[in-house]
Amino acid sequence: MSNTQAYAELMAHQRQTEALGLVMERLGWDQETMMPRAASEQRGEEMAALESVLHARKTDPRIGDWLDRAQAQGLVAGPAAEAQLRHIARSYARHTKVPADLAEALARITSTAQGIWAQARADEDIPAFLPTLKEVAHLRLLEADCLAQGGDPYDALIDDYEPGATGKSLQAMFGTMRPRLVALRERVLAAPNQPKPITGHFPQAAQLGFSRDMAGTFGYDFTRGRIDLAVHPFSSGTWQDSRITTRVVESDPFNCFYSTIHEVGHSAYELAIDPAYALTPIGHGCSMGVHESQSRIYENQMGRSAAFTAWMFGQMRQRFGDFGVGTAEDFARRVNRVQPGFIRTEADEIHYNLHIMMRFDLERALIRGDLGVDDLESAWNDRFLADFGTAVDRPSHGMLQDVHWSCGLFGYFPTYTLGNVYAGCLWKALRRDLPAIDADLAVGDTSAATGWLRSNLQQHGGLHSPRETIARACGFEPSEAPLLDYLEAKFEGLYAL
Amino acid sequence: MSNTQAYAELMAHQRQTEALGLVMERLGWDQETMMPRAASEQRGEEMAALESVLHARKTDPRIGDWLDRAQAQGLVAGPAAEAQLRHIARSYARHTKVPADLAEALARITSTAQGIWAQARADEDIPAFLPTLKEVAHLRLLEADCLAQGGDPYDALIDDYEPGATGKSLQAMFGTMRPRLVALRERVLAAPNQPKPITGHFPQAAQLGFSRDMAGTFGYDFTRGRIDLAVHPFSSGTWQDSRITTRVVESDPFNCFYSTIHEVGHSAYELAIDPAYALTPIGHGCSMGVHESQSRIYENQMGRSAAFTAWMFGQMRQRFGDFGVGTAEDFARRVNRVQPGFIRTEADEIHYNLHIMMRFDLERALIRGDLGVDDLESAWNDRFLADFGTAVDRPSHGMLQDVHWSCGLFGYFPTYTLGNVYAGCLWKALRRDLPAIDADLAVGDTSAATGWLRSNLQQHGGLHSPRETIARACGFEPSEAPLLDYLEAKFEGLYAL
Repeated sequence: MSNTQAYAELMAHQRQTEALGLVMERLGWDQETMMPRAASEQRGEEMAALESVLHARKTDPRIGDWLDRAQAQGLVAGPAAEAQLRHIARSYARHTKVPADLAEALARITSTAQGIWAQARADEDIPAFLPTLKEVAHLRLLEADCLAQGGDPYDALIDDYEPGATGKSLQAMFGTMRPRLVALRERVLAAPNQPKPITGHFPQAAQLGFSRDMAGTFGYDFTRGRIDLAVHPFSSGTWQDSRITTRVVESDPFNCFYSTIHEVGHSAYELAIDPAYALTPIGHGCSMGVHESQSRIYENQMGRSAAFTAWMFGQMRQRFGDFGVGTAEDFARRVNRVQPGFIRTEADEIHYNLHIMMRFDLERALIRGDLGVDDLESAWNDRFLADFGTAVDRPSHGMLQDVHWSCGLFGYFPTYTLGNVYAGCLWKALRRDLPAIDADLAVGDTSAATGWLRSNLQQHGGLHSPRETIARACGFEPSEAPLLDYLEAKFEGLYAL
Repeated sequence: MSNTQAYAELMAHQRQTEALGLVMERLGWDQETMMPRAASEQRGEEMAALESVLHARKTDPRIGDWLDRAQAQGLVAGPAAEAQLRHIARSYARHTKVPADLAEALARITSTAQGIWAQARADEDIPAFLPTLKEVAHLRLLEADCLAQGGDPYDALIDDYEPGATGKSLQAMFGTMRPRLVALRERVLAAPNQPKPITGHFPQAAQLGFSRDMAGTFGYDFTRGRIDLAVHPFSSGTWQDSRITTRVVESDPFNCFYSTIHEVGHSAYELAIDPAYALTPIGHGCSMGVHESQSRIYENQMGRSAAFTAWMFGQMRQRFGDFGVGTAEDFARRVNRVQPGFIRTEADEIHYNLHIMMRFDLERALIRGDLGVDDLESAWNDRFLADFGTAVDRPSHGMLQDVHWSCGLFGYFPTYTLGNVYAGCLWKALRRDLPAIDADLAVGDTSAATGWLRSNLQQHGGLHSPRETIARACGFEPSEAPLLDYLEAKFEGLYAL
């Protein structure tokens, strides 16, 4: 077998694995949108069978041989091929480091833990969730130890979501961000003339109609996607089929509108990746943080800008009549209202990052063994009071609000703020290159901005590392400064500070 | 390895194969109902990858060893275990007889042939389809030769759909049926006072609303299913998730209503199978003919009966107002109107079987080599003129109307008439056991009839052979006589012969 043949065989193997991975995503989508309600046991069996096929393919010992031959110096050339081999080697090492029985135990517990968490949250019953959370955390820690091979186990977990990031680097970045965010929050909350929330009744059909139109405004390609309803909005799939979901609360249309724009950001990224990379490791968004930078820049930097909300205000007046807001300026203030609330997913752009920092510290302490699962509730509540100035009034407003830990997603939360940081960098660079962008957004035209993102970032998929992806798009090294500058300028303007 | 352990390992292997087969069905459903229109290449890759996994699992050489050990006399006891081994041995023999390159070539050609057929049908262009049809027929014949191992290749093809049936036995049965069907058709068409078709405008939403209600009337379990729109109605899935589709033509509500009832019949069968058989070979309907008997008895013997159509007439008056039909008797005559039309799927209960007999003779001649693909059009048109008294006016009304041959489904058509024959037997037995069934149907209550089918037939899935399944349900050996008696009595009544 020649070395180029080894590469060809490896990529053919990988191609089928990727296709089966997309089938798994489609099953997950179906489960949340279409599946009959009594079919969950069957779906569990289907997904377990497919997962077992995927696991066998990802740990196939031939991959090791193919990699050895294909990586022989100078024989597989070009940045795309090198990136493919890097991704496959990462995945192979990751999947072969974890014993099969541990991987299986984790798959089993996390598939049931989500249901137990949802029931505990509905019942406001932390003790009902703790034994499961203990087991998930225990197994995930065992896995982290296998992956870390003597290094920091929390770093090994982060690495699943954001290759190259570490607990230490994130801690340093969060440490720089916190004082400026807190200072800004204090000034905003002390300002006179606080904006009121938008209230009223916004019928589901009209919300969904505007949502669809707005997805089109942001360039969502409906020939390769669709929008459905789900309890928790998400996007899934890539290449020719990336679907999104949204949800409707008739008293709060922004829940639907900004969920839609957020998920369009994720899907637009996947759909913009060079189709030559389809069914290969680099044919996906390059990390969770970079992915989130796309959903956030669509949702926040574009969707919540004064320019775009002015257009949105006109649209809403046409579609919903007079809804009690008199001017575009007042509309922008209300859409961007800053409030220290309990719920992360409902937080404004300032408080959101404080939510993440709190989860980051707590989960890092858990994984390090400095905090026990039994003490998590009091740790959460103490920290929330300290950071947000309010006492948690019920578990669903506290440590039971997020699904992540029940799924074993320790190390995932920091990628949300990393996404905000990356979005801050990209927005700075985009505005530098497109000085007239506000005039475009003010007439509901996102094409220049989304086009800039497509050609500077999205098309490259997983070709580069996360930081390099951002640095190449921006022309400068990523840091938290552009996000903080943007937030200060934005809220100083909105609150006339 | 003990023999019971061999059986356990075989069934565990089979369980995952079955689950992956259900995933494939779900992908097929998604493709016809939900998939974005530009995603077909991706879906092709996904299905090919999954098919390759399925093929490897079905030809896994361990199956041969497991079967040898598990079948050792007396060690795996009970009719269910014996049936499982019979099905697995059949499947293993079937899949290992065909060389992998031939199976792959067939999969490749049939996946593209359906699109070529659809385009040719839209363009009324037989020459555009012939090269593809030749290739499909050629490869399928090669496959049939592998399967037949010296026997009749057409029998080997039928065996995929209706184990135990042969070309000879079907020819004999059709030979008995034809004269009585033709004689009945002549008497019906010569009768005075021919019923008129139902015309008017029946809005889509109201059709779908009644369709859903009617599915409920026939006992469809919406917690384990759902109804969506598709170009060609079908049902898919089993156990906890069997979905159906329907279609709407606003000028012809019966297209939607009877498509729905037909597909409910298929799904009700799958959903009624003993859940202890889930994810095993006997956890499916037992053959295409027996499956079709369920859809037909729901659609025709129940759904088009004078009793049920009287209830349906009242419902339609409530839902659509006066639609130009005065009495339940006239409604029943119009719903059952006999007309020699071009299209099989729109045919009445008499002509339907004549369509099948024609396709059976043509495809059997093709597979035997007595008819060339180049001569198929003239053979079709000559035969249609002889059997239906009308000249085919365009290819989409002739040999391009059905998708089956493009998919390589030679040997499939006769199972439709076999389904009608089995439905005739079951209806005779059901009426013997439930003498008051007409009174139930006249008030829209199908529960006694569907309950009889569930307990006498549906719950057993693939436990028995097709003929034994029917014989056990009926208490007599199946034959064509009950269907012919039923048709004669029904149309003599409707047409006052």
